[in-house]
Amino acid sequence: MTRTDHAGVSGIYTRRESEARSYCRSFPTEFVKASNATMTDASGRDYIDFLAGCSSLNYGHNDPDMKDALIAHIAADGVTHGLDMHTNAKTAFLETFEDVILKPRGMDHKIMMTGPTGTNAVEAAMKLARKVTGRHNIVAFTNGFHGMTLGALGATGNAGKRGGAGMPIPGVTHLPYEGAFGPGVDTLAQIEMMLDNPSSGMDAPAAFLLEPVQGEGGLNAASAKWIKGIAALAKRHGALLILDDIQAGIGRTGTFFSFEEMGVVPDMIPLAKSLSGMGLPFAALLIRPEFDIWKPAEHNGTFRGNNHAFITARVALKKFWSDDRFQTEIAEKAKVLNQRLADIAALVPGATLKGRGMMQGVDVTSGELAGAICADCFDQGLIIETSGAHDEVVKVLAPLTIPMAQLKAGLDILEAATRARTAPHSHSQKIAAE
Amino acid sequence: MTRTDHAGVSGIYTRRESEARSYCRSFPTEFVKASNATMTDASGRDYIDFLAGCSSLNYGHNDPDMKDALIAHIAADGVTHGLDMHTNAKTAFLETFEDVILKPRGMDHKIMMTGPTGTNAVEAAMKLARKVTGRHNIVAFTNGFHGMTLGALGATGNAGKRGGAGMPIPGVTHLPYEGAFGPGVDTLAQIEMMLDNPSSGMDAPAAFLLEPVQGEGGLNAASAKWIKGIAALAKRHGALLILDDIQAGIGRTGTFFSFEEMGVVPDMIPLAKSLSGMGLPFAALLIRPEFDIWKPAEHNGTFRGNNHAFITARVALKKFWSDDRFQTEIAEKAKVLNQRLADIAALVPGATLKGRGMMQGVDVTSGELAGAICADCFDQGLIIETSGAHDEVVKVLAPLTIPMAQLKAGLDILEAATRARTAPHSHSQKIAAE
Amino acid sequence: MTRTDHAGVSGIYTRRESEARSYCRSFPTEFVKASNATMTDASGRDYIDFLAGCSSLNYGHNDPDMKDALIAHIAADGVTHGLDMHTNAKTAFLETFEDVILKPRGMDHKIMMTGPTGTNAVEAAMKLARKVTGRHNIVAFTNGFHGMTLGALGATGNAGKRGGAGMPIPGVTHLPYEGAFGPGVDTLAQIEMMLDNPSSGMDAPAAFLLEPVQGEGGLNAASAKWIKGIAALAKRHGALLILDDIQAGIGRTGTFFSFEEMGVVPDMIPLAKSLSGMGLPFAALLIRPEFDIWKPAEHNGTFRGNNHAFITARVALKKFWSDDRFQTEIAEKAKVLNQRLADIAALVPGATLKGRGMMQGVDVTSGELAGAICADCFDQGLIIETSGAHDEVVKVLAPLTIPMAQLKAGLDILEAATRARTAPHSHSQKIAAE
Amino acid sequence: MTRTDHAGVSGIYTRRESEARSYCRSFPTEFVKASNATMTDASGRDYIDFLAGCSSLNYGHNDPDMKDALIAHIAADGVTHGLDMHTNAKTAFLETFEDVILKPRGMDHKIMMTGPTGTNAVEAAMKLARKVTGRHNIVAFTNGFHGMTLGALGATGNAGKRGGAGMPIPGVTHLPYEGAFGPGVDTLAQIEMMLDNPSSGMDAPAAFLLEPVQGEGGLNAASAKWIKGIAALAKRHGALLILDDIQAGIGRTGTFFSFEEMGVVPDMIPLAKSLSGMGLPFAALLIRPEFDIWKPAEHNGTFRGNNHAFITARVALKKFWSDDRFQTEIAEKAKVLNQRLADIAALVPGATLKGRGMMQGVDVTSGELAGAICADCFDQGLIIETSGAHDEVVKVLAPLTIPMAQLKAGLDILEAATRARTAPHSHSQKIAAE
Repeated sequence: MTRTDHAGVSGIYTRRESEARSYCRSFPTEFVKASNATMTDASGRDYIDFLAGCSSLNYGHNDPDMKDALIAHIAADGVTHGLDMHTNAKTAFLETFEDVILKPRGMDHKIMMTGPTGTNAVEAAMKLARKVTGRHNIVAFTNGFHGMTLGALGATGNAGKRGGAGMPIPGVTHLPYEGAFGPGVDTLAQIEMMLDNPSSGMDAPAAFLLEPVQGEGGLNAASAKWIKGIAALAKRHGALLILDDIQAGIGRTGTFFSFEEMGVVPDMIPLAKSLSGMGLPFAALLIRPEFDIWKPAEHNGTFRGNNHAFITARVALKKFWSDDRFQTEIAEKAKVLNQRLADIAALVPGATLKGRGMMQGVDVTSGELAGAICADCFDQGLIIETSGAHDEVVKVLAPLTIPMAQLKAGLDILEAATRARTAPHSHSQKIAAE
Repeated sequence: MTRTDHAGVSGIYTRRESEARSYCRSFPTEFVKASNATMTDASGRDYIDFLAGCSSLNYGHNDPDMKDALIAHIAADGVTHGLDMHTNAKTAFLETFEDVILKPRGMDHKIMMTGPTGTNAVEAAMKLARKVTGRHNIVAFTNGFHGMTLGALGATGNAGKRGGAGMPIPGVTHLPYEGAFGPGVDTLAQIEMMLDNPSSGMDAPAAFLLEPVQGEGGLNAASAKWIKGIAALAKRHGALLILDDIQAGIGRTGTFFSFEEMGVVPDMIPLAKSLSGMGLPFAALLIRPEFDIWKPAEHNGTFRGNNHAFITARVALKKFWSDDRFQTEIAEKAKVLNQRLADIAALVPGATLKGRGMMQGVDVTSGELAGAICADCFDQGLIIETSGAHDEVVKVLAPLTIPMAQLKAGLDILEAATRARTAPHSHSQKIAAE
Repeated sequence: MTRTDHAGVSGIYTRRESEARSYCRSFPTEFVKASNATMTDASGRDYIDFLAGCSSLNYGHNDPDMKDALIAHIAADGVTHGLDMHTNAKTAFLETFEDVILKPRGMDHKIMMTGPTGTNAVEAAMKLARKVTGRHNIVAFTNGFHGMTLGALGATGNAGKRGGAGMPIPGVTHLPYEGAFGPGVDTLAQIEMMLDNPSSGMDAPAAFLLEPVQGEGGLNAASAKWIKGIAALAKRHGALLILDDIQAGIGRTGTFFSFEEMGVVPDMIPLAKSLSGMGLPFAALLIRPEFDIWKPAEHNGTFRGNNHAFITARVALKKFWSDDRFQTEIAEKAKVLNQRLADIAALVPGATLKGRGMMQGVDVTSGELAGAICADCFDQGLIIETSGAHDEVVKVLAPLTIPMAQLKAGLDILEAATRARTAPHSHSQKIAAE
Repeated sequence: MTRTDHAGVSGIYTRRESEARSYCRSFPTEFVKASNATMTDASGRDYIDFLAGCSSLNYGHNDPDMKDALIAHIAADGVTHGLDMHTNAKTAFLETFEDVILKPRGMDHKIMMTGPTGTNAVEAAMKLARKVTGRHNIVAFTNGFHGMTLGALGATGNAGKRGGAGMPIPGVTHLPYEGAFGPGVDTLAQIEMMLDNPSSGMDAPAAFLLEPVQGEGGLNAASAKWIKGIAALAKRHGALLILDDIQAGIGRTGTFFSFEEMGVVPDMIPLAKSLSGMGLPFAALLIRPEFDIWKPAEHNGTFRGNNHAFITARVALKKFWSDDRFQTEIAEKAKVLNQRLADIAALVPGATLKGRGMMQGVDVTSGELAGAICADCFDQGLIIETSGAHDEVVKVLAPLTIPMAQLKAGLDILEAATRARTAPHSHSQKIAAE
């Protein structure tokens, strides 16, 4: 969905910011404040945030405990930038991550501080898988999204994004995700046939790289059975399993990792987005220790290990994951979300519910309609975006910490917008008028 | 230079951090505080910082004005993460960057907020150059360093880093930088012959990508004449000129951009490292407006536009670049640095001075010796690193804001270490003993 | 199937010929004469040839009319090698090909003389498709075989062959051929979904490259419906249709082109193998005139246009294709072949009939069994080979000109060998004993 | 040089042959006979052949002994096509090649029968080098020409040919050939520096692939010193040395191999063009036995091992290389050629002599002038072509067997044409008039 820049905002953006800018076109106002699920613009108007930094703000905007800890760190001249040297902030983060996340889940993974973007963590994973196996071919999946740098872009399915590369991108085979050919087709069986056929033309895979829930690709949620099938295929064919939990992880689906209840142990897990807790740039790659064969600095980067992010991430882990209260809270909200979205889907002929946990949406069957609904929502004070190969899914990514009343209020807006757009005589006219 | 982890630091690092970690091996202690050019470890010991986050801390650690502004922003619930939506922090940064940097230099460039890492800004530049020209081939240079993600890694010269890719990296031709074949060889003339020969095997270039001073490659500083020659060649052959100012820019060589006094106007300029002012992850790509042909979100990323960095970057621009006092100060320090390094170079047979401005060092002719000197310096309280294809250059990257006395104190340590390592009978024995 | 070199043959082969040699290992004797479907070795023993130079000898060995014409040409100092200059031999070939083949079939294709190998004709087709469309991606199919040079190898499915490249081969997407996932799966529908999904990760295709019958891949014969579906998809997506008729063409399936009765007009058709008529190296690429946008010599080669082959190819066209008698004869033999192979298949539990026309075989369910049958046949004076991803298909490629009695005699040998290998108690023991 | 098709030739060429056709445009007549150095067209006009099938006819057209042997083979139903099975023709060829060529030169190489084109032999060499070393990068050289299939095309320097690929071609680094940057520049030293610099961006080479004399690239002849330097570099860096003797070998420079007197032993040697003796399609790759690690059929092809070519090649080896008379004869003619070309070069301001042996020419400083001279020669009954990156070299590739008087007669025509084109007032006018 693309609209022109808001008249009320300084011309500096059209004058000086690159045409690559995007979300500001959908939400044409200037934001000045944000707290939990509420963003406030320069005119003082509040908006409910159902986008949450594309799942970078699972704990909401400016969590007070994270703020306090970060301000204290800054005030005390705590290290802001330390390359990848040891700092007390880093030590504390690592110890907390081990205690709160890894140990309780029986995970022996090591943590690689990559450059502080999801695409960098994915690139590190792809490089390491190739290095470990001596193979070049990474299997990625239809509708997958893994980043914009050349290596990760190769694993991203979107043709428009891929076209930005300006050249063929080698090293990736794209296979069908679960359900890609409709409900009746067992894509896992087909993938197995491709792998078992020595004349399939598919080079032996270094890794399978996939998102348990495809955030950008339309909220396609793979079943545990299918992902376990992929894991078994990977093992049998000497390939690594990389589960990209950048958007679906850190509680978004109800558990810290989106695959926790699936019975698989990924060889590598790229994390980013909500990992820092407060939306600060931060990414990491979890690696099974036997595959951690990097030489020192073989993959490096100036901003790997953001100390401010260590501070807020540690607070987030302690506050939300030390016990199961947060998971219970997410489950309750997810249930409400599911019921309300089912009602909304019922308004649109052919619409279907997508996703799981607090990562759900409605496939309204057309990108035009989805875009119109989201635009109307914004007019009514709700920030919400589309997803999917044709932008046909209205996607709810509210902060997990959103108060129940505000969640419902946002869903009210969404329902009203959907109803208006799908009421007889109204829909086609309004879209046609834009 | 690689050493084992310091005994004093928690075992969490060896237990849980990936083997890719690196600087912590050279500087095996845990840092807890940092201010301007001083870092303090957990035992309370102070270190002079001649590394400055690899030039990410040109204004020193934790500048008080940046700290105050950032704390105020956080305390007021200013937007922390806003994807690339308009925010007041972003508006103010863009307006300041236009007023303080672009306008006075007559630059009409647009600013693209890329993912907050240098490699991402380079990837965006490479992609855009290919898209603009319809050509795939990027010319990069011997000893160049541009990043670790697959596209940028293709333009990076270092074989060890390239090997991490685990596969051939297409799309880049590496040509000799100025001086790569010794002082007597005019590499520019040779590059011209390669380009003018339709049977050279070199595909028509989309862009020339180079660092005016090669920070990682050994502080090789190209002359204005050579860079103007490359610019002219690029123009004649329909290629874009991309000057990667990630390490050499933001005042490091004495002016905001390292090429300011060279008489060239780059088509694209990747910036990162010190752009945020305080070491926060932040990167941008400057683009001549006629080449800003991105479609919305064609290159995107969750953390593009780090609002905390907008705050500190704006303070940095206003504080240091509103008049020419800072430049004068840098020039004075650079002069001292140059004289002292010349003295140090004189201690080592065959050693040569490298670099320019506050980005200088000494090629001590062997990586072994350079590593030994840096290790000794750390023992004496000085953080300093090597650079170059063989790690043979001892590189001084002190904060530009370092007090003159502290700069001299650091150089005293460096001189003493060099003297000790090069004194008769001492050098080989000490290295052998390690 | 690989056996050691025959003791009776000079040691020159083991001493001096590369380990890449292959058929000589399956048929370990030295041949000295050949006529129609009979090859004779140095000891005077005759063999029935059911391999026919892998379909390069559709008109049998040393056709007397071709021999006479070729000898006359040589004796008269006719041009042997003329690069791609005009010669009377070339003029006559082109005129005959136009009159006998193209005009009667309403084909407006132009003829490109490529290097005299099938792989060269395929490379030319791939290059031209990329040039015409400005796209790099060629869609090839599981079990496809198109050649051994880097470009064509990219389109070849066989992992062992692909591994010979020693590097990733870019530019090809491999999709499932008809029946690749079993009889119940409509691969055409899936391919359509991949193409219609803008997030499938599949780059827009320059061409679809496929064999109407997969000779090396196991005698998989696509239906007219499926190939018409691919043709329609290609047209709708702006891609060219390349039907590789190198092995299946020149009468092998019953008509000159294997796709003649399918209702499709390929944009390009690589031809080789039996094109020269007598087994001389010769290849050509047929191109729809609107796509013949080559610049002079843009794809060239020393041996393009083999004048000896022009002579024999012209004789072949006139002798066999001026009327429909040859087609009728092929149809009769194909019918006999089909019936006899059905009987043979019935001997092997689970075996199935493969292929069509004079390009049929039996999938005996294991490469081990197929190899053993072929080896036994050779002992009994029949030259026959396997095919398929697991070498599991016993493939009959007799000359189309083979006398009916000899065809039946060969099939008798095949049937006896199959019977012996599959009789109770005999099969597993004999294989195990090898 | 491109001219329109000759009016006298049938319209079949413009109607049905692809636009890729080329030599027929320079020599617009229809040839019907050829003997030694004379070609005769349909009108009965004789032409002196200074092109010799681009060095495919080193023994002239239709050598009577080769003709006799080939006719006898055909008449006796000798095997024409036998895939790579053992035949008496093949046995005899291999034994002769061993006795006459390999043994006397102390060469232990094995012979791989590749597809019968030069490009196929080069592809096999590149694949094998990558397989042997586990590295992908082949070093090729400016102005090199190695073929048109994707792998070999990557090693070919010509931009027009490369553009035919329609996509970037990976896996090759192009470095400067001897003299590429003028006489004062030691390219070997620079190549050494690139290899020794671990940050040069050049990936470790699998092989160095070069022509001792660059036939298409402008008759650049490398010195023994330079080639030995490359051989030493290859050895030191674990890379193979591949000397492509397709155009310069088989006597063209005076000895069977062009590098015989240089003191190097190539690891692989692609041969084609004159290998068959009579211009029949034939190619082979010589491989040091320790690198012959092919698996059976890992690189295969239908026409590998052309039995007709075995017959003529054996005659050629016995007739011309059993003693040193042929070499002496070549040396005498080369001396005459050299003297006469020196005289011709003296007619053109700035012109220089190029090449060595019977592979010499004159760089007349412009492709326009060279093309005009060749066109005039053809009008006077001499077939001769240009070479070089700008087609600026008039290249003499007469059969080595050409009678001395005919060689001189051809040179007389060339001299007259050059004189006419460079006489005052005549040159620019005549070119302008075309």
